[in-house]
Amino acid sequence: MLRTNTCGELRRKDINKTITLCGWVQSRRDHGGVIFIDLRDRYGLTQVVFDPSHLAKLHKEAEHLGREFVIKVKGKLRERKKGMINPNMDTGEVEMFADELEILNKSDVPPFEIDDRKLANEFLRLKYRYLDLRRPEMQRNLLVRHKVALAAREYLSSKGFLEIETPLLIRSTPEGARDFVVPSRVSPGKFYSLPQSPQLYKQILMVSGCDRYFQIARCLRDEDNRGDRQPEFTQIDIEMSFAEQEDIFQVVEGLMKECFKKGINAEIKTPFKRMTYDEAMNKYGVDKPDLRFGLELCDVSEIVKHSNFGVFKQALDNKGVVKCLNVKKCAEFSRKDIDELEEVAKVYRAKGLAWMKMANGKLESSVTKYFSEELLIKLIKHTNAKNGDLLLFVADEFRIACSALGQIRNHLGKKLNLINKDAFEICWVTDFPLFEWDNDTERWLAMHHIFTAPRDEDLELLETDPGKVKGKLYDMVINGYEICSGSIRINRRDVQQRVMDVIGLTMEDAEQQFGFLMEAFRYGAPPHGGIAPGFDRLLMVMLGYDDIREVYAFPKNKKMECPMDGCPSDPDKQMLKDLHIKLDIAKK
Amino acid sequence: MLRTNTCGELRRKDINKTITLCGWVQSRRDHGGVIFIDLRDRYGLTQVVFDPSHLAKLHKEAEHLGREFVIKVKGKLRERKKGMINPNMDTGEVEMFADELEILNKSDVPPFEIDDRKLANEFLRLKYRYLDLRRPEMQRNLLVRHKVALAAREYLSSKGFLEIETPLLIRSTPEGARDFVVPSRVSPGKFYSLPQSPQLYKQILMVSGCDRYFQIARCLRDEDNRGDRQPEFTQIDIEMSFAEQEDIFQVVEGLMKECFKKGINAEIKTPFKRMTYDEAMNKYGVDKPDLRFGLELCDVSEIVKHSNFGVFKQALDNKGVVKCLNVKKCAEFSRKDIDELEEVAKVYRAKGLAWMKMANGKLESSVTKYFSEELLIKLIKHTNAKNGDLLLFVADEFRIACSALGQIRNHLGKKLNLINKDAFEICWVTDFPLFEWDNDTERWLAMHHIFTAPRDEDLELLETDPGKVKGKLYDMVINGYEICSGSIRINRRDVQQRVMDVIGLTMEDAEQQFGFLMEAFRYGAPPHGGIAPGFDRLLMVMLGYDDIREVYAFPKNKKMECPMDGCPSDPDKQMLKDLHIKLDIAKK
Repeated sequence: MLRTNTCGELRRKDINKTITLCGWVQSRRDHGGVIFIDLRDRYGLTQVVFDPSHLAKLHKEAEHLGREFVIKVKGKLRERKKGMINPNMDTGEVEMFADELEILNKSDVPPFEIDDRKLANEFLRLKYRYLDLRRPEMQRNLLVRHKVALAAREYLSSKGFLEIETPLLIRSTPEGARDFVVPSRVSPGKFYSLPQSPQLYKQILMVSGCDRYFQIARCLRDEDNRGDRQPEFTQIDIEMSFAEQEDIFQVVEGLMKECFKKGINAEIKTPFKRMTYDEAMNKYGVDKPDLRFGLELCDVSEIVKHSNFGVFKQALDNKGVVKCLNVKKCAEFSRKDIDELEEVAKVYRAKGLAWMKMANGKLESSVTKYFSEELLIKLIKHTNAKNGDLLLFVADEFRIACSALGQIRNHLGKKLNLINKDAFEICWVTDFPLFEWDNDTERWLAMHHIFTAPRDEDLELLETDPGKVKGKLYDMVINGYEICSGSIRINRRDVQQRVMDVIGLTMEDAEQQFGFLMEAFRYGAPPHGGIAPGFDRLLMVMLGYDDIREVYAFPKNKKMECPMDGCPSDPDKQMLKDLHIKLDIAKK
Repeated sequence: MLRTNTCGELRRKDINKTITLCGWVQSRRDHGGVIFIDLRDRYGLTQVVFDPSHLAKLHKEAEHLGREFVIKVKGKLRERKKGMINPNMDTGEVEMFADELEILNKSDVPPFEIDDRKLANEFLRLKYRYLDLRRPEMQRNLLVRHKVALAAREYLSSKGFLEIETPLLIRSTPEGARDFVVPSRVSPGKFYSLPQSPQLYKQILMVSGCDRYFQIARCLRDEDNRGDRQPEFTQIDIEMSFAEQEDIFQVVEGLMKECFKKGINAEIKTPFKRMTYDEAMNKYGVDKPDLRFGLELCDVSEIVKHSNFGVFKQALDNKGVVKCLNVKKCAEFSRKDIDELEEVAKVYRAKGLAWMKMANGKLESSVTKYFSEELLIKLIKHTNAKNGDLLLFVADEFRIACSALGQIRNHLGKKLNLINKDAFEICWVTDFPLFEWDNDTERWLAMHHIFTAPRDEDLELLETDPGKVKGKLYDMVINGYEICSGSIRINRRDVQQRVMDVIGLTMEDAEQQFGFLMEAFRYGAPPHGGIAPGFDRLLMVMLGYDDIREVYAFPKNKKMECPMDGCPSDPDKQMLKDLHIKLDIAKK
């Protein structure tokens, strides 16, 4: 190695050692003729001193060092002078007194400084990603990503899981989103798809007797880019045979404990909290509740059905509900504040937001006139309203009322600073409905995918009341982010047939769409289930970001471009010919 | 879990325990009314006994068990009767005496039996890969693959390397082979490429200050399929900064030691042997010598130049060489045997193969007449020929003579059973030429890629004698397979310019082709180098195969199809429209 040490490791114990460091010039300061360089590498910073009274020629050379020059420097480590000690720097008690200098490479003046300040200009950050990645924060993110991946692999391996690589060039199968595709050169007119997930292949591996599979798997989806989505993402894909939901929970809880411990030295509590989908919707209005704060929803349908308030009555008449949120000590909210909340509710399809304020032991509002004194007292009791509290109401069908108020809850969590940013609140959400009704096509759709098993106790409902069938379907949620979703799969053709009957899919359609898995299932498919924690999203939550790109080395921008390498780019004509395709774009 | 134990772990110590197993019915045998089932899972086989005198109804159910049915069976473990003990089976001393049986899933009759015999029909193996993978040999391969990947990760992590994921959707850059490409939906008419390797991105990571990077990286090349090639492959991609060749050797030697130990419990010797490219060509006629056997080539140019044999003289006059192989104790080779060897030589562009046989202390051949007695004695001495030996000669330009005879050497290694199949003979081949002369275009080409650094001592030759410039370029070879290739990279623009001058590439061309890396190099690129062991090929060699597909879970066939999932497949019309492309194939 060109160096004897890294720039992050030197301490008082190393004083008087002769060392060689390599790194980048973070800064150069001239103090009364003596030049101080902060030399940076992945591991940290060390101060290097060039003293003209020691070696005049060397000092002269150091005068030409610019920011981001790559140098090799040799010298003796010494204690810093009193008053020069920097307690904010790991190596702040020592400095190198330089004897030799070699410029390994020069640098043009970088377009921005490499320090702890994140550049606002996103284009520049992505174009010069190699400079952005030099920032300690980004280096930390890459390090944590590495550590968590290794921890996951070691943990799963210790539990008997094998990492098995599934192909990237696969057959297109209907999944949630659009596939990226790859034209075949050898088979004219045919295409491969890139995997949205290894779902079918991991189930095939269970049929192959692999028993316990995992893969930190690269997945691709051609979706329009959002803040927490990227066209490429990584998931900790897991599948196990002869397992039940509890077994999968145990594996994932152990896995997460390891990942948090090894990644960011955080202790998380296991077993995780659990709640059913119904409970999550009822209390938090979402199926991925942020449990870092309270502010739970309550249901006031039973009380307000006796009122004369038309909006509430109408919703209840239509088999809807009236949900309420008691926003403690926010009675002073202005009309504008409440309008803002109503806007949030409307995005989630609520028709409006009603409110009451508690003052002098009484509820006040333009709508209290529709309520008897007795009902108002019941409301106060049921919502635990105290003076200064603000009650918010949404009346609508169950899912709309819950989710509109649930989003207001999340909005208020941030606005009122209710969230403990250092906490990781994790829970399982279980017993999701297996089907959801699609109003447009007037039929049942599979909520997850068609291989999700119904709960044993709900099997009989498949033919009588599909809407009530819950699946062996579970999500893990951290701080309001759905980190993973999984299920126990159907492994028997008879049950598969009954589920497909509900959504109106014939065995022939299924064979067409999922043919090879359906065929594999003929030859002894074991009971199996799995889950797939989103690796990028897990890291994003662990590291406290709300933009997933911070945990990628080379993310794409919102137009799915990489400003650094300039992809996607124009094709070569011969290439198109070889691939048997033509462009089909409007001429400009 | 549905089971208490796996089918591979039960031993004498478990006798009398009540256990539950899940697995596949490997076989059912009826012995005097008692039914014996071999129950299989990933971990092994356990014999299960259904005795009608114990439970008649259960025994009746067991009569219906077919091959590959998935069952759950509960019972007490007992010692096998004397004479029934199977020493070839890990669980051969015990058996389960069944009390309960549940058929978890039936199976159609599988198209082939799941046992240690490999099916000859490749199509069936790939179509029913899930059945082929149930074979213990394939399960072993997946297990070893998993173990080696984990060992590599743990080892590299312990040496300070971070695993960093580089993108799959990238810009096309000129590499050895054809890219697979992905049409962009969002940017009409533009394409992403899939990486042939993360080469440019790992160098960018060095510029990013990542210091030590690795990635067990998925790579794709649209090449015509060969026995040891697949369109998708995996490499242990490594790059490090401030390192020299020796540092990379040390890392890779430690890595291989771990991989062999953890993967197949083999001890390999480090440091590895080393030889220069020139030495490898001279002695073994190839740049990837199989050192599991001797049979070294020698150079007889200095001796035979004094003969009157026109073929030899002509080659030498054209600045060529005459290489010789002493095939010990093979003087009895027939004309047909030698013709066969000549065919091998001709594939590698040799014009012919001359031979002499040693008998009664003399060399005999139709060409000895062109040699004086003195020359023949010198030849005998130089080639160490003994009675019964066969000398083979190729006269041609250096590379053709060496490689033709080198291929004959490899051919004879197999034919004469000279190879110790259990040995792993590993060596480094170093000091490859940096350029090779292309006769067609009459110019120098880069042997590896244009970022490979010349040896320091050869820098001056760049302008005067490019053919003599050796690179800091090294291969690791195991048993005659090139497992990896690597180099120290050029990190300075001045050297880069001089190398590009040799191959006639302007800085503008380079900016066009490798623009973002060239730009990154402006901002302080550290000295760096790397290597990338081919993971599939490493496993193939470790496990003693000569077909790389044996170490893949889901390989493609030679037409780059997957008979199991049926990819590539016909595209959806709407999809083509969304991607702004049309098919361009001749109508049938």
